[in-house]
Amino acid sequence: MSKFWSPFVKNLVPYVPGEQPKLSRLVKLNTNENPYGPSPRAIAAMQAELNDNLRLYPDPNSEILKQAIAGYYGVRPEQVFVGNGSDEVLAHIFHGLFQHGVPLLFPDVTYSFYPVYCGLYGIPFETVPLNEQFQIRVEDYARPNGGIIFPNPNAPTGRLLPLAAIEQLLQGSPDSVVVVDEAYVDFGGETAIGLVDRYPNLLVTQTLSKSRSLAGLRVGLAVGHKDLIEALERIKNSFNSYPLDRMAIAGAAAAFEDRAYFERTCRQVIASRGWVVAELQRLGFEVLPSAANFVFARHPQRDAEELATGLRAQGVIVRHFKQERIRQFLRITIGTPEQNQALIEVLSTLC
Amino acid sequence: MSKFWSPFVKNLVPYVPGEQPKLSRLVKLNTNENPYGPSPRAIAAMQAELNDNLRLYPDPNSEILKQAIAGYYGVRPEQVFVGNGSDEVLAHIFHGLFQHGVPLLFPDVTYSFYPVYCGLYGIPFETVPLNEQFQIRVEDYARPNGGIIFPNPNAPTGRLLPLAAIEQLLQGSPDSVVVVDEAYVDFGGETAIGLVDRYPNLLVTQTLSKSRSLAGLRVGLAVGHKDLIEALERIKNSFNSYPLDRMAIAGAAAAFEDRAYFERTCRQVIASRGWVVAELQRLGFEVLPSAANFVFARHPQRDAEELATGLRAQGVIVRHFKQERIRQFLRITIGTPEQNQALIEVLSTLC
Repeated sequence: MSKFWSPFVKNLVPYVPGEQPKLSRLVKLNTNENPYGPSPRAIAAMQAELNDNLRLYPDPNSEILKQAIAGYYGVRPEQVFVGNGSDEVLAHIFHGLFQHGVPLLFPDVTYSFYPVYCGLYGIPFETVPLNEQFQIRVEDYARPNGGIIFPNPNAPTGRLLPLAAIEQLLQGSPDSVVVVDEAYVDFGGETAIGLVDRYPNLLVTQTLSKSRSLAGLRVGLAVGHKDLIEALERIKNSFNSYPLDRMAIAGAAAAFEDRAYFERTCRQVIASRGWVVAELQRLGFEVLPSAANFVFARHPQRDAEELATGLRAQGVIVRHFKQERIRQFLRITIGTPEQNQALIEVLSTLC
Repeated sequence: MSKFWSPFVKNLVPYVPGEQPKLSRLVKLNTNENPYGPSPRAIAAMQAELNDNLRLYPDPNSEILKQAIAGYYGVRPEQVFVGNGSDEVLAHIFHGLFQHGVPLLFPDVTYSFYPVYCGLYGIPFETVPLNEQFQIRVEDYARPNGGIIFPNPNAPTGRLLPLAAIEQLLQGSPDSVVVVDEAYVDFGGETAIGLVDRYPNLLVTQTLSKSRSLAGLRVGLAVGHKDLIEALERIKNSFNSYPLDRMAIAGAAAAFEDRAYFERTCRQVIASRGWVVAELQRLGFEVLPSAANFVFARHPQRDAEELATGLRAQGVIVRHFKQERIRQFLRITIGTPEQNQALIEVLSTLC
C-alpha cells in the first residue's frame, strides 16, 4: 500500500488467469483455448496488414469488423460493440451499465472475473446459488437487482441454459440489463442474439478467443439494443480511442467471414468432447453435461487438487479452483485427439 | 439517455481523436503519426508470431516487452508497466493514482483526453494557465493537489519543459503523483525516466505510436517506482488480464531493440521539422518552438479554421482545435519531405 494509490486500490483482489507456461511441450488443457489454429483467411488478412501502414492509427470504430459481425448475426452495425478481448468489453459493461446502487446478481459458481469488476467499480453484488446439479434457476433471479450477468454455457460448469429460460429471466427483470456472456456458446449452445430486437435490456457478449481460435489476438464483442451499445461507446471513447489494433481488426473480421472453417473446427471439438466425456466416465468420473469446449468433472474417490498435481507432474495441465463448492472438480479443456489421449492415459495411472 | 445506463454515463464527454480518413491519397498531417514505417526488425518479429500459436493467450505480463524497455532505460522490469496504447495506461493512472478528492492539476492547453478521464472516474480537476508564450510555469503548481499531469513536450504546443523545472515541480508536490506524459519526447526532449529512482512520486509515460512508428499496434508504457507500478498492475489485472496481443508484445519489444533505426528516423523527422518551421516562418507564420514531431503555428492575417478548410480542399489535413486560447493555431504533423513540400505549396496559395 502506498499513499499515492487511489483508496479503492488497496482492497482490489485482481483476477488470476490460468497459467500460461513457457514450456511448449506441456499438454495445455487449462485455459480453454482452441486446439486448432485460426482460420487461414484470418492469418492471410493479418499478413496483409503487416507493413508500413502500422505507423498509422487503426480505425477507431473498427468498422469492417462491426460490419462482419453484424452481417454474420443479421443485426445492424450500431448494435455491435467490439473491444480488446471480451474481458475489456465486460469491464465497460460493469462500469457503464451496472452502477445502480442495487446489487448485481450472478451465480455463486461462475466466471471469477465478475466479482473483480465489482471491486474495480464499487458495484454491490449478490451471488445466487446454482442448484444441486449446478444449474441456474431463473426463478431465483426474480427480485430487485441492478443487473444480471451469467455465462451461457456457464463457466466453469459447462452447463447450458435454454433460450426459453433466458426469456423468462429477461421478462422478470425488464428494468435492468441482463448480460448473457456467450464465450463458449459455439460449442453446443444457441446464441441469444436473436432475442436482442425483442428485449432492449438484453446484451450478449462473445469472444474470438475460443471458437474463433484467436486468444492471442484479443478481440471480444457485445450485441444488443443500440442504446446499450451507445453507453459502451461512450465509455470506450472516454477510455481508449483505439482499443483494437490493425492486425486485430483485420484478423477478426476475416475469422467471421470464414464460416466453413469455423463450423468444421467447432464440430471437431464437439466430437472430441464426446470422446473425452466417455473416457472420463469409464475412469469413474462424474462429468457435468457440457455445451462448452471444456468439461467439469469430479472423481468420487480421488481428490481433485491431487489429481491436478499428478497430471502436472506428467506434463498435462488442467484448471483447479479452490472455491468451496467446486474444489473436488477439475476443469479440463478439450484438446486435439492426441492431447485428449495423453490426458486420459495419465489419468488412468492416477485413478 | 437510457434508464439502463450507469448515471455518470449521461454526462460523459468522450475524447474526439483526429480524423482517420479512408482516402489514402490525402497528405495526412493531423494525428502526429511517424512518416516512416516501423523498424524492419519489428515487422520481422510480428511475422514470426503470425501462426497457429495465435490460438493461445499471450503472456499476461508481457515479460519480454518489459525486459526490452527496462534494458533500454536501465531500470528494473518491475518498474515498467505496459498497456494497450498510452491512452489505456493513462486511464489506469487516472483511476488508480488520482482519486484523492483533491483537484488534479494540468495545463489549460494540453492533451484534451485528460479532462475526459476525469469525467470517467469522477476526479475533480483544475486547469493551470500556460503563460503568454504557452509555457508551463512550475511555480503555479506549488499548491495542494491530488496529482499533476502534463505532456512533455506539451501537446498541442510542442513546447518543452527542462528536467530542472520538472525536478522543481516534483519537489513542490512530494505527496502527490506527478505524471510526465512523454509521448513526443524522442523528437527533441530528454526523458525524465532518469529521475524515477530519486522521486518515488514520479511516473513517466510513453507511447510506441510516435517515435517508434507503431500507432497501428497500440502499445504504451509507464516507468516509475515499483509501488506506483503495482497500483497499475492491480487495476490492469482487475480490468483485462491480457491487454497486449501476441503481435504487439513481439513487435514492440523488437522496436526497442532496434536502436539504430529508431535514432535514424527520429533524426530525419527533426531535420524535416527544421525545414517546415523555416518555410512556415517565410510564409509569415508564428511558430512555437517545438520539441515534438509536429509544430503549432498561427498566421497573423489568416484565420486558422479557414486555412485548415483550404488545406483540406487540396488534400492536406492538419488539426485545428476550437478551444478559445488556441483557435488561431494549426497543429501540423511533420511528414516526409514530399508531404512537407506539399503542405508548404498549398499553404503558399492560401497565405
